[in-house]
Amino acid sequence: MIKVGIVGGTGYTGVELLRLLAQHPDVEVEAITSRSEAGVRVDAMYPNLRGHYDELCFSEPDTERLGACDAVFFATPHGVAHALAGELLDKGTRVIDLSADFRLRDAEEWAAWYGQPHGAPALLERAVYGLPEVNREAIRSAQLIAVPGCYPTAVQLGLLPLLEAGLIEADHLIADCKSGVTGAGRGAKVPSLMAEASESMKAYGASGHRHLPEIRQGLGDAAGGQVGLTFVPHLTPMIRGIHATLYSRLVAGRLTAESGELQSLFERRFADEPFVDVMPAGSHPETRSVKGTNLCRLAVHRPGNGDTVVVLAVIDNLVKGASGQAIHNLNLMFGLRETAGLDAPAIMP
Amino acid sequence: MIKVGIVGGTGYTGVELLRLLAQHPDVEVEAITSRSEAGVRVDAMYPNLRGHYDELCFSEPDTERLGACDAVFFATPHGVAHALAGELLDKGTRVIDLSADFRLRDAEEWAAWYGQPHGAPALLERAVYGLPEVNREAIRSAQLIAVPGCYPTAVQLGLLPLLEAGLIEADHLIADCKSGVTGAGRGAKVPSLMAEASESMKAYGASGHRHLPEIRQGLGDAAGGQVGLTFVPHLTPMIRGIHATLYSRLVAGRLTAESGELQSLFERRFADEPFVDVMPAGSHPETRSVKGTNLCRLAVHRPGNGDTVVVLAVIDNLVKGASGQAIHNLNLMFGLRETAGLDAPAIMP
Amino acid sequence: MIKVGIVGGTGYTGVELLRLLAQHPDVEVEAITSRSEAGVRVDAMYPNLRGHYDELCFSEPDTERLGACDAVFFATPHGVAHALAGELLDKGTRVIDLSADFRLRDAEEWAAWYGQPHGAPALLERAVYGLPEVNREAIRSAQLIAVPGCYPTAVQLGLLPLLEAGLIEADHLIADCKSGVTGAGRGAKVPSLMAEASESMKAYGASGHRHLPEIRQGLGDAAGGQVGLTFVPHLTPMIRGIHATLYSRLVAGRLTAESGELQSLFERRFADEPFVDVMPAGSHPETRSVKGTNLCRLAVHRPGNGDTVVVLAVIDNLVKGASGQAIHNLNLMFGLRETAGLDAPAIMP
Amino acid sequence: MIKVGIVGGTGYTGVELLRLLAQHPDVEVEAITSRSEAGVRVDAMYPNLRGHYDELCFSEPDTERLGACDAVFFATPHGVAHALAGELLDKGTRVIDLSADFRLRDAEEWAAWYGQPHGAPALLERAVYGLPEVNREAIRSAQLIAVPGCYPTAVQLGLLPLLEAGLIEADHLIADCKSGVTGAGRGAKVPSLMAEASESMKAYGASGHRHLPEIRQGLGDAAGGQVGLTFVPHLTPMIRGIHATLYSRLVAGRLTAESGELQSLFERRFADEPFVDVMPAGSHPETRSVKGTNLCRLAVHRPGNGDTVVVLAVIDNLVKGASGQAIHNLNLMFGLRETAGLDAPAIMP
Repeated sequence: MIKVGIVGGTGYTGVELLRLLAQHPDVEVEAITSRSEAGVRVDAMYPNLRGHYDELCFSEPDTERLGACDAVFFATPHGVAHALAGELLDKGTRVIDLSADFRLRDAEEWAAWYGQPHGAPALLERAVYGLPEVNREAIRSAQLIAVPGCYPTAVQLGLLPLLEAGLIEADHLIADCKSGVTGAGRGAKVPSLMAEASESMKAYGASGHRHLPEIRQGLGDAAGGQVGLTFVPHLTPMIRGIHATLYSRLVAGRLTAESGELQSLFERRFADEPFVDVMPAGSHPETRSVKGTNLCRLAVHRPGNGDTVVVLAVIDNLVKGASGQAIHNLNLMFGLRETAGLDAPAIMP
Repeated sequence: MIKVGIVGGTGYTGVELLRLLAQHPDVEVEAITSRSEAGVRVDAMYPNLRGHYDELCFSEPDTERLGACDAVFFATPHGVAHALAGELLDKGTRVIDLSADFRLRDAEEWAAWYGQPHGAPALLERAVYGLPEVNREAIRSAQLIAVPGCYPTAVQLGLLPLLEAGLIEADHLIADCKSGVTGAGRGAKVPSLMAEASESMKAYGASGHRHLPEIRQGLGDAAGGQVGLTFVPHLTPMIRGIHATLYSRLVAGRLTAESGELQSLFERRFADEPFVDVMPAGSHPETRSVKGTNLCRLAVHRPGNGDTVVVLAVIDNLVKGASGQAIHNLNLMFGLRETAGLDAPAIMP
Repeated sequence: MIKVGIVGGTGYTGVELLRLLAQHPDVEVEAITSRSEAGVRVDAMYPNLRGHYDELCFSEPDTERLGACDAVFFATPHGVAHALAGELLDKGTRVIDLSADFRLRDAEEWAAWYGQPHGAPALLERAVYGLPEVNREAIRSAQLIAVPGCYPTAVQLGLLPLLEAGLIEADHLIADCKSGVTGAGRGAKVPSLMAEASESMKAYGASGHRHLPEIRQGLGDAAGGQVGLTFVPHLTPMIRGIHATLYSRLVAGRLTAESGELQSLFERRFADEPFVDVMPAGSHPETRSVKGTNLCRLAVHRPGNGDTVVVLAVIDNLVKGASGQAIHNLNLMFGLRETAGLDAPAIMP
Repeated sequence: MIKVGIVGGTGYTGVELLRLLAQHPDVEVEAITSRSEAGVRVDAMYPNLRGHYDELCFSEPDTERLGACDAVFFATPHGVAHALAGELLDKGTRVIDLSADFRLRDAEEWAAWYGQPHGAPALLERAVYGLPEVNREAIRSAQLIAVPGCYPTAVQLGLLPLLEAGLIEADHLIADCKSGVTGAGRGAKVPSLMAEASESMKAYGASGHRHLPEIRQGLGDAAGGQVGLTFVPHLTPMIRGIHATLYSRLVAGRLTAESGELQSLFERRFADEPFVDVMPAGSHPETRSVKGTNLCRLAVHRPGNGDTVVVLAVIDNLVKGASGQAIHNLNLMFGLRETAGLDAPAIMP
């Protein structure tokens, strides 16, 4: 059994790790830390876990105990993993960070977006960006994983095939993204109240969102150069799910008029990916079709056979956009079956 | 008192007309027709109207009775107004059609999108497209009004200032629109069930939607030529509301770097409009802020001061996107105060 | 014009007062206070009010300014009205308190349930319990009104006819109540987050809730003696609305077997009440049928013609359960039309 | 591997069987029938199942093929199992009926409530009521199982300990039940539309519901005699879940004043039950804490230490209230681990 610890387990990505790991055949949760809830049983806070983690309590962060684990997940606000990751890596514990701390390769850019100096720039070159559909081999041998953000996961998976094939103009990409309210976390904030967020739709961060540089970095790698991206996230009245609607313009002359070309491009690109499902041509994937799962479902459209491509990508922001992808990384790092702990179908309706 | 009739009053736009007209100081509902519900009291079907329309029952469509009204609203599926409007116009009754029957100027294009011949092409030249922010004067003297569709209203209001000023490239407009479930009407269809539509988000009609030609026609008028538009509607888990997120590219060199230029363009364009509210710079309007009202709230963004403009426009699809706009047209046609019956604030939360 | 002030206007009952008063023909809002938001425009905080209160800002509580009003509403947590009401009353300003401060006649009982001494016991005998269906005449001449709580309003209206007629056993009443999330207020608390409260149902306070003594006091008045009541509130995944399901046992021999007797009892009791709607026999009122209105809709059932009576009562917790009832009281106190500002139909769907 | 068939697999209990069986280690789905969808892949209709049932299509009902299965689930409207069960039983196939066809022992009573003659009265004495917490041993050897209804499951589990112990008056039980919208099935009906059912709460069937005789039968068995029950179901704006709030009166003198007595009664009664979770004293279980699981979570309260007992019981109507309980029965009938296929924790949030 792989022994894991979780730092900062009281938020939604923390409880989602526990939910998924409860079904994982090869993993045992040794410790889960929370300063504010130390001493509280996890199933007192999350009654859905009653019967699954009988004696497990939140504990104070303790690098001894965490360092005795094979791997430690950070499900913390940004900045926390900066402070602790190095010490754990020194003990030989692998670190899988769900926060943004190691996603950007450039510490300066990180500092600019997060308004504070990067706390562990020396670790950046050891960090592997944990998008298995791009970095599978590097992940297998990584010691430190930066799990991609939720929006970045959906946007990158939707645009990678087109950028890698050089089919679209990379300087004017548009990502219109819709996220359920768990994307805002479990903090007690007025805009996240049901009375405020339900029965309404709104954009936010239209002038700039912290996921923007992460997405640009990933898309730039695929395109082999800088990309131009307009990214507008929207708060959607549902608990889970991200729907990314991605617009790009075809480079003139690269695509024949033959219908089906884009469809087969996507199908080939993800043929061996256990967690990417290219839907049949003409589909419109629903976020609920991936609820609770590590899947990304994709559909590609070319309206009126014109020069605009529309990609629709859906994920569960807490699973493929966070905790599930983290476990996928763990499975790769420890040579486990890739889908271990991640094979239940979505709950629907 | 202006006497009005409503044809096809059992759907959501029908009941919304009744809700709004109950507060209108100058209008009386004389007749409301429904083949399927003839004889049923409207407040038996819609208990929210108990106490407001005490004796009013649905009746069989009857052109005598309707023709005795000053104006008749059609809240019907497409095709119905084609058949009846002419006869009513001949009797001197003005017709305000909430369906798509008279929105497209080109009968051929109508036939292509609706899969049946246009039933009243001779009336087309008498029809005025009822978007008051564009056609106020023509509406005042019109006999036949084609009330704009819900998506077309939001998209046009959001893009008109930019197109009229020639500031954006008109050949690659993108309208990513999110609608509440009442947009699909009151028909008993599985995808509209709460168990299917709530807690999920999906696109539909990505390859072509019937509102596309209507929007293109309106935007083309503003641009003074053909426009290229990609329009992707999404079903959003809320009852009412449309959020249009509109992306366009600035024509090089037209705009100075001065911030605030776009903001003041929008403010000037709609300064005298009672139902368009340009929000302060940096705003993200919420659909709930217009729930139940005839307002369109707008915000304009220019992310990173780059060459992409993002406009956010919200309306209530049943009010500004249908019944409220129809009443606004009525007010204009009969010389009433423009906001009569339409001045209650949105319900929030 | 009646000049009114609002103390504590940032919560849901405060904004609801503003929404309703915006449509009131005879009332003007002179001042609205909030310590935390002093200086902020009300329509910056509540964009639904844009265009309705153009210059109105929250201000520091100021008894001079409030004392110049004809009436002041308290939309505050308990305890605040205790401190301020006396001073305002001395200035001749009438006080309409939406909080619990003056609802219980017994200061000791108040202290026991609220965990602090009653702050103004001397005022208690001047306070009138503002349930117009019971106290209309006393309200007309009152200086200080205790607006009933939301649950107490629904439960009392549903049980009054039966208790007043002596038809039911008063020692074993059951009130199973379901409330939307606005009942918990606008405070930023984790259990009120959309991610926590939507898609779920739970009871709370099953062992005792602060509305219990208020309901018992009111029902006791109707019954002419003490009553026994079990009251279990439930948090329901909707924004507004209370559904009270009330169970009681018929006193043997008081009712003939004739069907319709209970129905006509209810219809007679509320025949002249503008805000109580007894639905046709066999009805099941929906909370949405009263959304945004001051109405209580009721239905009475006698399953299997047995000895149990089931009353179904629905209200909007923010209107008839708070701000609307407060305005109804104001209308009575100042001799205005009872329904002034309160006559719009419910928004549906 | 146990080979199973599903008759009528297009409804919500059908797809829920497929979702759960996809994780069952010992069961294989051989056939799933649907007249209306014959030939359609199950994962075309239910995209959440993509990747789990690759070749499985709906087929015409075919007793040869079904009869070759070890067990057949009926997820059909009432009446269908009457017609087919006998033939399958004759072939040695065990039948697990999720419909109401074999739940009532009395064919006359069935006919009265369902408005048609019972179609297979001869099978009634072979049918075992599949509530494992009551009939575990009989289920092990049964050939024909009547899976309990959703409301009956929640109500019986909540009241059984009290009735079996003779602690409550059995002639005046009250069950106030709240169900999510999947309880109404997947039929395309206007009242089930999201625009109608969300953001509202209403009772239905207050004068009599088909689950009433089933509940009375089960409670009567526990009480050793007839019981009197008032049962009012409510439609709640959520997808899944039942919350039963159960009120009963203590028989005088049976309970000491000692607190904790009821709590320990419940804990003892369900100590060995894998799917009943008695929550700590003072708890208020949430429906979401059992979403997607076969659990019933219970709490027992005695408000004010008086003579009324309040039991709170939550289940997922599609799992413990239907498909999960059906699989639990299958596990018992075939000697499998009781929790096989049913051990995933609830998804939360």
